Amino acid sequence: MHTEPTTFSAEEYFATQPPPSTLQHDVEKVREFVERQNRDGRQVVLVTSGGTTVPLELNVVRFLDNFSAGTRGATSAEYFLKAGYAVIFMHRQFSLQPFSRHYSHSTNPFLDFLDIDAPESEGATPRISVTPNKREDLLQVLTVYKKVHALGTLHTLTFVTVNDYLWLLRAVSQEMAILKRRAMFYLAAAVSDFFLPRQKMSEHKIQSGKGSLHIEMDQVPKILKPLVDEWTPGGYIVSFKLETDPNLLLPKAKQALDRYGHQVVIGNDLHRRKFEVVFVSKKPQPALPPGIEQTEAAIAHASDASNAFSEYWLRIDIPETPTPGFPAKEIEEDIVAELVRRHAEWIANTP
Amino acid sequence: MHTEPTTFSAEEYFATQPPPSTLQHDVEKVREFVERQNRDGRQVVLVTSGGTTVPLELNVVRFLDNFSAGTRGATSAEYFLKAGYAVIFMHRQFSLQPFSRHYSHSTNPFLDFLDIDAPESEGATPRISVTPNKREDLLQVLTVYKKVHALGTLHTLTFVTVNDYLWLLRAVSQEMAILKRRAMFYLAAAVSDFFLPRQKMSEHKIQSGKGSLHIEMDQVPKILKPLVDEWTPGGYIVSFKLETDPNLLLPKAKQALDRYGHQVVIGNDLHRRKFEVVFVSKKPQPALPPGIEQTEAAIAHASDASNAFSEYWLRIDIPETPTPGFPAKEIEEDIVAELVRRHAEWIANTP
Repeated sequence: MHTEPTTFSAEEYFATQPPPSTLQHDVEKVREFVERQNRDGRQVVLVTSGGTTVPLELNVVRFLDNFSAGTRGATSAEYFLKAGYAVIFMHRQFSLQPFSRHYSHSTNPFLDFLDIDAPESEGATPRISVTPNKREDLLQVLTVYKKVHALGTLHTLTFVTVNDYLWLLRAVSQEMAILKRRAMFYLAAAVSDFFLPRQKMSEHKIQSGKGSLHIEMDQVPKILKPLVDEWTPGGYIVSFKLETDPNLLLPKAKQALDRYGHQVVIGNDLHRRKFEVVFVSKKPQPALPPGIEQTEAAIAHASDASNAFSEYWLRIDIPETPTPGFPAKEIEEDIVAELVRRHAEWIANTP
Repeated sequence: MHTEPTTFSAEEYFATQPPPSTLQHDVEKVREFVERQNRDGRQVVLVTSGGTTVPLELNVVRFLDNFSAGTRGATSAEYFLKAGYAVIFMHRQFSLQPFSRHYSHSTNPFLDFLDIDAPESEGATPRISVTPNKREDLLQVLTVYKKVHALGTLHTLTFVTVNDYLWLLRAVSQEMAILKRRAMFYLAAAVSDFFLPRQKMSEHKIQSGKGSLHIEMDQVPKILKPLVDEWTPGGYIVSFKLETDPNLLLPKAKQALDRYGHQVVIGNDLHRRKFEVVFVSKKPQPALPPGIEQTEAAIAHASDASNAFSEYWLRIDIPETPTPGFPAKEIEEDIVAELVRRHAEWIANTP
């Protein structure tokens, strides 16, 4: 069955694809959270994290996925919390989360550092304690975790499919509009470029026949455009570009800024992303000194693409002997510090 | 670029697709484990669990995936261990694992039930303790976990791609051949039917153009056939059939038994799999009483398909108020008990 691919606008997308069943419930919780943070005068960042899926069947057995454990998002969320931000952590189900990320079931399972102590008296229940050499690390993580919970500055939302993601992003950003310039968007999720419209999905598991599997999908609408223009005017918007070909990194980042008009693209190469990223932004147009005419030279200068963007490279040393879960330094600490600084400027420069 | 789909035999597959880089290392560890269990006279089960991915690019950003959190495999592995089996748990990276599965980071995060107690004296490090109402459950899980580790009866292996899975399955089953009838294979992983041969992969991230994405894949070879016939003669082999259309469940299970000649197919419907499964097996051909000729009637009886298979339905009640992580009853307890019984018969009937 061959049908022509459709290019959906965001409007057409939301008009034809059904919302997730939990959307209304999720949005109400976000509204309460945002209103409370707004009253308390906090900056709020939406951190999206992990990959989205594209289900190939209505009764989902198979899906297309994007590679992402959610490390960038989970780690950054932790540093935003430490910096005093309230965080809406919107992440792929089962991807890493702030705090618990230090205790992956695979590489640092918590059951391994719990001991059963002999009961103090016969018949008493044995005590469980933490292995001495793990105590300090756990105490550090647990202390921040408890503090964040006591303050109520972390709100968690989950998505699985790209459809869940799109509906949630629109709804959450609309709720955050009341924060005006105090809202930041840190869009670290690895979102599929393609989707299979519900109208084209097979009801049951696709049976494997004799030949090959053909999948024909449509393009996901570019939602950065309405996010910037309509859903959350004034918000400070950071998107990510992940490439495997380093030559494409800067051109693609600049293209995105030209196309969507948001504040920062953080570019990263798949293999260097743990220790090197680049912040790409549009330079503010220099105000011409009063009395000076718009000369041809000034116009040429402003439209010279090589001069229109600022590139800010951020690099950290790679630790020689990394401790599982506790590297010497995480690049997200510096990324977040730089963004917090830029965001404060952005708020101060409110027109 | 359109090329004709290829149907690979297992032999052709392994001749053309490269092994994972960690294969040799993994196989050596499995060999040590199997030899030790063999000396100790234990039954050994290989439990495969979780979904496989099909990478679409060499520098993997996107992949096709199969739905599976790995609940069936992780839960069953725990019951096999409790029944005295040694378990090789070969699972998808980040899918659920025995024991830690009770403490999902999403629904039952362990940081939530750790308390920081006030230090006993000023300046002393605070103690960490387990919240009283969580202590008993944790103590139960931890006790079995520690016992299994002390006995050394659990060996864990991870895969990500369908290629990792196929190479590992072949190598592990060949190592298990020395166990003869004491080896069981519990193939609960959700393995892709399709793959993209390395020779057809794009080196870099597929750029999203204006149109739709076409993916054309080849069929994964049917590896149950060489598993039964060549890699591990004598092993007791259990495969799984997951369908969303209940009408296909029994026909597909019987077709698999006919095609591969293994011992059991466990059929489950996607929506009923937590409380209902069906064991499908070939009935043993009744031995004709001595002196009786192979009559036409006897031959007709044996070749009557409706009579050639046994179906054994296993159902449990659905708990009305399930406790997260600790349901009243898990169907895997009964599945494993039934298989342990059948496996003991299989060993006793060694020809």
